[in-house]
Amino acid sequence: MEKVKPIKLVKDMKVSELVGQMKGAGFGARKIGRAVEIVEKMFNDSECRVFMGVAGAMVPAGMKQIIIDLIRAKKIDVLVTTGANLTHDLAEALGDKHYHCDTWDDEKFNDEGFYRMYNVLMKNDVYLKLESFVEENWEKFKECGNIQEFLRVVGELVSGGEDSILKACYENDVKLFCPGLADSGIGLMIWGRLAQGKEINIDAFDDMKEIIDFAWTSKKSGVIYIGGGLAKNFIQQSLQFSKGADYGVQITTDRVESGGSSGAPLEEGKSWGNLKKGTKDYVDVNCDATIALPLIFSGVLGKFKNEEVN
Amino acid sequence: MEKVKPIKLVKDMKVSELVGQMKGAGFGARKIGRAVEIVEKMFNDSECRVFMGVAGAMVPAGMKQIIIDLIRAKKIDVLVTTGANLTHDLAEALGDKHYHCDTWDDEKFNDEGFYRMYNVLMKNDVYLKLESFVEENWEKFKECGNIQEFLRVVGELVSGGEDSILKACYENDVKLFCPGLADSGIGLMIWGRLAQGKEINIDAFDDMKEIIDFAWTSKKSGVIYIGGGLAKNFIQQSLQFSKGADYGVQITTDRVESGGSSGAPLEEGKSWGNLKKGTKDYVDVNCDATIALPLIFSGVLGKFKNEEVN
Amino acid sequence: MEKVKPIKLVKDMKVSELVGQMKGAGFGARKIGRAVEIVEKMFNDSECRVFMGVAGAMVPAGMKQIIIDLIRAKKIDVLVTTGANLTHDLAEALGDKHYHCDTWDDEKFNDEGFYRMYNVLMKNDVYLKLESFVEENWEKFKECGNIQEFLRVVGELVSGGEDSILKACYENDVKLFCPGLADSGIGLMIWGRLAQGKEINIDAFDDMKEIIDFAWTSKKSGVIYIGGGLAKNFIQQSLQFSKGADYGVQITTDRVESGGSSGAPLEEGKSWGNLKKGTKDYVDVNCDATIALPLIFSGVLGKFKNEEVN
Amino acid sequence: MEKVKPIKLVKDMKVSELVGQMKGAGFGARKIGRAVEIVEKMFNDSECRVFMGVAGAMVPAGMKQIIIDLIRAKKIDVLVTTGANLTHDLAEALGDKHYHCDTWDDEKFNDEGFYRMYNVLMKNDVYLKLESFVEENWEKFKECGNIQEFLRVVGELVSGGEDSILKACYENDVKLFCPGLADSGIGLMIWGRLAQGKEINIDAFDDMKEIIDFAWTSKKSGVIYIGGGLAKNFIQQSLQFSKGADYGVQITTDRVESGGSSGAPLEEGKSWGNLKKGTKDYVDVNCDATIALPLIFSGVLGKFKNEEVN
Repeated sequence: MEKVKPIKLVKDMKVSELVGQMKGAGFGARKIGRAVEIVEKMFNDSECRVFMGVAGAMVPAGMKQIIIDLIRAKKIDVLVTTGANLTHDLAEALGDKHYHCDTWDDEKFNDEGFYRMYNVLMKNDVYLKLESFVEENWEKFKECGNIQEFLRVVGELVSGGEDSILKACYENDVKLFCPGLADSGIGLMIWGRLAQGKEINIDAFDDMKEIIDFAWTSKKSGVIYIGGGLAKNFIQQSLQFSKGADYGVQITTDRVESGGSSGAPLEEGKSWGNLKKGTKDYVDVNCDATIALPLIFSGVLGKFKNEEVN
Repeated sequence: MEKVKPIKLVKDMKVSELVGQMKGAGFGARKIGRAVEIVEKMFNDSECRVFMGVAGAMVPAGMKQIIIDLIRAKKIDVLVTTGANLTHDLAEALGDKHYHCDTWDDEKFNDEGFYRMYNVLMKNDVYLKLESFVEENWEKFKECGNIQEFLRVVGELVSGGEDSILKACYENDVKLFCPGLADSGIGLMIWGRLAQGKEINIDAFDDMKEIIDFAWTSKKSGVIYIGGGLAKNFIQQSLQFSKGADYGVQITTDRVESGGSSGAPLEEGKSWGNLKKGTKDYVDVNCDATIALPLIFSGVLGKFKNEEVN
Repeated sequence: MEKVKPIKLVKDMKVSELVGQMKGAGFGARKIGRAVEIVEKMFNDSECRVFMGVAGAMVPAGMKQIIIDLIRAKKIDVLVTTGANLTHDLAEALGDKHYHCDTWDDEKFNDEGFYRMYNVLMKNDVYLKLESFVEENWEKFKECGNIQEFLRVVGELVSGGEDSILKACYENDVKLFCPGLADSGIGLMIWGRLAQGKEINIDAFDDMKEIIDFAWTSKKSGVIYIGGGLAKNFIQQSLQFSKGADYGVQITTDRVESGGSSGAPLEEGKSWGNLKKGTKDYVDVNCDATIALPLIFSGVLGKFKNEEVN
Repeated sequence: MEKVKPIKLVKDMKVSELVGQMKGAGFGARKIGRAVEIVEKMFNDSECRVFMGVAGAMVPAGMKQIIIDLIRAKKIDVLVTTGANLTHDLAEALGDKHYHCDTWDDEKFNDEGFYRMYNVLMKNDVYLKLESFVEENWEKFKECGNIQEFLRVVGELVSGGEDSILKACYENDVKLFCPGLADSGIGLMIWGRLAQGKEINIDAFDDMKEIIDFAWTSKKSGVIYIGGGLAKNFIQQSLQFSKGADYGVQITTDRVESGGSSGAPLEEGKSWGNLKKGTKDYVDVNCDATIALPLIFSGVLGKFKNEEVN
């Protein structure tokens, strides 16, 4: 049996050393350490296609660059995220920012023109810029038949601006899906056009063909879930048409016992066939993603052969 | 100041008495009591339109009849839910069942043909019936231009069968939205047709018009959220175009601190304008919905003037 | 396999009917239903000694009468709780009250003389009454050699006043333990005397003899844990000297994954020997205790043969 | 207003750089960053006495060396912990180890002689060594009048062995308190002697004098809480006799809404007077301590003037 080794912190310690030591410790630390190992294995397996699901407000929380760098390093094949994340990503691509707030008064924020997401704020006039952007480029959007195409056009349009997930996916041919796009600021801008009688014809089901085909034809697959929701579930569903994921890392604070897909342990996927029978290369990290995500991927970068990430 | 009153249980106590007493107690009990008061106020306010969002696997967990009875009692104007809930609802409408499991072995369940959702199982051959259902009725589905229409057709088709949310919404003209329908068993069945070259033309953004119009024209509004995710967020987004909800009850186990929309307190909505400034009629109930939902609505039914529920 | 049955709420429904139906539902509802069954079994097994551990601020939250009624119904043999609960219990026995607060400003509460516990307040002058009480009765306390004796004297002293846990334990010969008494308002009052040069000689380890003897000589045993902490752990430790509990119900919101005793599932106790190998009569209810406690015990009272509770 | 800055991971990044960047991000990452700042401020304030409370099974989880190094660096003035942590610390001091387990079968572990704490195991024969240790040194323990003295004697006895919290506190004159010592393996060993008719006279309240005096005479104070329970509460109670803490960092996964002391935000302490009115130097980090603790203190060590830690 393997002994628990107490973590020994040293001055100027690297993150890669810390997460290496974490694997020798217990409880959640152990899981961070295993997540690093599993992600490395997944990334170094040339037959493995990586599906990443990102829920939660990860862009406002300052996590976008980590995802962007993974895309640029060619480590992600499919990215599924929420309309909210892409709206915030687009807002930043168009030059807007998010702001800190360590205490809050929501009625006052409303008076001052701020939307709050826990300890992060966004100015509500961001929507005006988004509206102009959608209006100006409507002719291009009109030709898109599904959400994936729409997002590719957006990515192309912002590829000259500040770095963004949309841009990185476009430039690196990463398949970007957002099944809940209607439920977001971008969706609202499209609705605004429709309400003025403009037309667009984006199919609600068309994207499924591509992600399911991609899952179906994967020799091996790995999943990385940041939060749950639609992003995770859309991947899980597609993988029912695969041989089942060989590797899995899930970061969530949702509870197992409340029975939803978001908090469900990866293990449960073995019953559904989206996690491969027999595999032990999966771990549920029960932690705030803004803490676990940098820790795990900084650890990965520290040992990483592929230099392209930075 | 109002004193805390210890709860006194008595033999043959009614649920309505219990939740009445809960309001006099502290912590979560107090919140259950306040939720009952707020729901009653919302239901008795004739100017108020009620928007209910239902995430999580509430149908497999046996919560559907509560939602159905609220619909039949004309207490809900808009219902937004997940594709998963509607898939399970349809499966039961077509005669299938869910099963208990108090311990689990996911590899074994897979061998035996069961999908697991925490302590509930579903047979995987359910999908065969769903497939036949979609195949047989394809001609009717083909004419639907948005998800809402599609669901109304499904509701009509199952209106002869076992009671279901789909049927109840159809029969009572409740607006039923499911922005993430692609991400579900029903979505898979539609994909299956598309993969065979069949055509359908369901727009991803069309439903927004109706829910936003409905929010926009509401004199007053109230929200009831069972879990978060797309279901909550789609309503929250629409209500940015209203005067802000006057009443709100949210049941969730998600954490505030992880910053996602699902765990966000209703209060945060005041910054976004989807909760009315100045209102005090809202409460976050931090509890497993399968416990809080029956408790709150049984309490409501106990005092309810409207007899139609039962 | 047993089918999930949707919960059907009816007007004037009894709590006992609701929890009966809950057993047929999924997720947490199922567990409430099982908890009721297990508690009934435990209470109706004449060979079984019942050990109840109560952490958290259950007295300020208005839960004391439920515990008192269980004691008066002779359903509890051993009660272990925190110094905080007994301090609040004593304060109420001496005539003080707790108060509701639905919003908070802690600096203001301090100015106004209130201590806050989430949504419950206590006046800080409560401590003055406690001080007088301890001072006036010092001669009696001086003769106590352990905490259990001390609490019995307190129980006798307050037996003329408002109903309390201390009084109920005294009057019904329930063994009341509080290993962390020093860590409480009562502890502070004793420290106040010691600081003035008074003497008392209460042994820190003496109570262990009695609880371990009691566990050791139990033919069968059952545990009911409301929260974790010292209260739970003190019982778990004693039961290592028993045959292992035959029945167990635990209500907690603490997480399993953080590895502490408070959130540990009862199952883990099988490795330690404090839960009997082979038993299936145990359940972890992941819920706010102020919601689950009244629900479970109201359900129990509804079917209960023993009429003494009320 | 301060902008959120996306975290940029780079190869061979130091932990101190990562946590520095975390402060610029949102949600929990921000809080890790603030915790590092607050701990540094607390440690660099020569007038400030630092009170650390450690609950949970931090020794089995491999966190002991971090605590030991803080003690050796003279950064901690008072340490309050659980009997469980000190039992595991003593077991390791006497040469025993803890072991990893990534899956579990508690009945099997019991057969094989292992106790489980989530994903960590301990051999149950550890208790035999503890028993011999207590038996052999009984003459020394008999002379102790309170728990603090008892622990100092233990610390002296193990000062020749493997590094331990007990040894470090002894060698560095750190005040070590354990109000719940009876509730632990060490407590059981003492009980074992008492059951054989041996005598010891350890007072249950005597330690309060020293910790309250120390709080009372502090010019300034800071608190660091790893988990809640008795360890946190014993410090909080003592600080009611101080001017209120100037600095505070709390790491917990417990919920605010369940109302217990463990999950209570530091802010609540302003009503009780144990957090100083007006101070902003406090933060609640909602995270598994085995992840947050190394991250925060590695960050601190990276900038730390005091070289003694390593």
